[in-house]
Amino acid sequence: MEFSSKLLENAVNEMSKLPGIGKRTALRLVLHLLRQESSQTTDLAAALVHLKTEIKYCSNCFGISDTAQCHICTNSKRDQSLLCVVEDIRDIMAIENTSQYNGLYFVLGGKISPMEGIGPGDLNIAPLVEKLREGVVKEVIFAMSASMEGDTTNFYIFKQIEGLAIKTSTIARGISVGDELEYTDEVTLGRSILQRIPFENALKAE
Amino acid sequence: MEFSSKLLENAVNEMSKLPGIGKRTALRLVLHLLRQESSQTTDLAAALVHLKTEIKYCSNCFGISDTAQCHICTNSKRDQSLLCVVEDIRDIMAIENTSQYNGLYFVLGGKISPMEGIGPGDLNIAPLVEKLREGVVKEVIFAMSASMEGDTTNFYIFKQIEGLAIKTSTIARGISVGDELEYTDEVTLGRSILQRIPFENALKAE
Repeated sequence: MEFSSKLLENAVNEMSKLPGIGKRTALRLVLHLLRQESSQTTDLAAALVHLKTEIKYCSNCFGISDTAQCHICTNSKRDQSLLCVVEDIRDIMAIENTSQYNGLYFVLGGKISPMEGIGPGDLNIAPLVEKLREGVVKEVIFAMSASMEGDTTNFYIFKQIEGLAIKTSTIARGISVGDELEYTDEVTLGRSILQRIPFENALKAE
Repeated sequence: MEFSSKLLENAVNEMSKLPGIGKRTALRLVLHLLRQESSQTTDLAAALVHLKTEIKYCSNCFGISDTAQCHICTNSKRDQSLLCVVEDIRDIMAIENTSQYNGLYFVLGGKISPMEGIGPGDLNIAPLVEKLREGVVKEVIFAMSASMEGDTTNFYIFKQIEGLAIKTSTIARGISVGDELEYTDEVTLGRSILQRIPFENALKAE
């Protein structure tokens, strides 16, 4: 792609560094900004720089927060003995949306992925183990994505805390609500048969 | 979508003002920036603000340029008597990529679209007509998109310059190179039959 302007080329190049944004999309976005009021561009730039420089992470759960401790960790009504381990803050938002969980969270910051060069040392696993050793948490719930990397991460943490008197669980994997059996992939369907639950328990969850 | 941080919420809101970027995508992009070096965020912000504040438009063709006149308009090897009217700078880039055109361009800045509230006065139609009155341009090529709005814009300009001794043409519309006839829509196929060209001319274009 050849540009008639260095300024334009530079903006497109920077924009296309974002994941999922190619050069064409970047050009479309940048030309859109050019057609809008200046304030939109300066507001966007300021918001990004502000976020990056002033962002704080909750000292307790490592989630993004404007205060030293996030509003979930400081909420005394939540069950302090339940800890749900997630990859990032988007998972917290997804679980909070269900209104089905009343415990605390812990953000790992990713999952172990040798392919991407992410080892246990790059994640918040050490602080997690330290936290679990304190003895307040009675059950830790692994809520990682249902992938090889997620399973590896779960297993790694499980081995680290094996000696502690803490119950470990993982979120149920099975067919989605509303799914047709015939269209469900065989791995998911196989697991949901192996890990079947007593019907009375399913009734309670409704 | 509920956010644990005002800074994050603000960044996501600004990002999602871009066309085609929803809240979820914006959150993904913003969280990506958070995981990268600070320089990536500041570079992106600076590039956008720089572009917006220092952008110049070529005084001749209204294309984006770093100088008072763009490198196409100042290229003396190009045919000054041919003028191709396009919607925006992306169309210039697309046509330049073909290496089939050696004339000059003129950027209208959009097309007449009553639905979006864009009238002739919002486009660079007046400067175009003025330029054509100067008598240097012998042929004007309408290269608008093949839509109702494009056709309307073409016709509006055509009526404005009707009295001038200038040849007008529009880029050919027909089936794309490599297309199967049976999968081509009927309007395109119909036009390409009505506007058939002598076979010798087609041979020359190869």
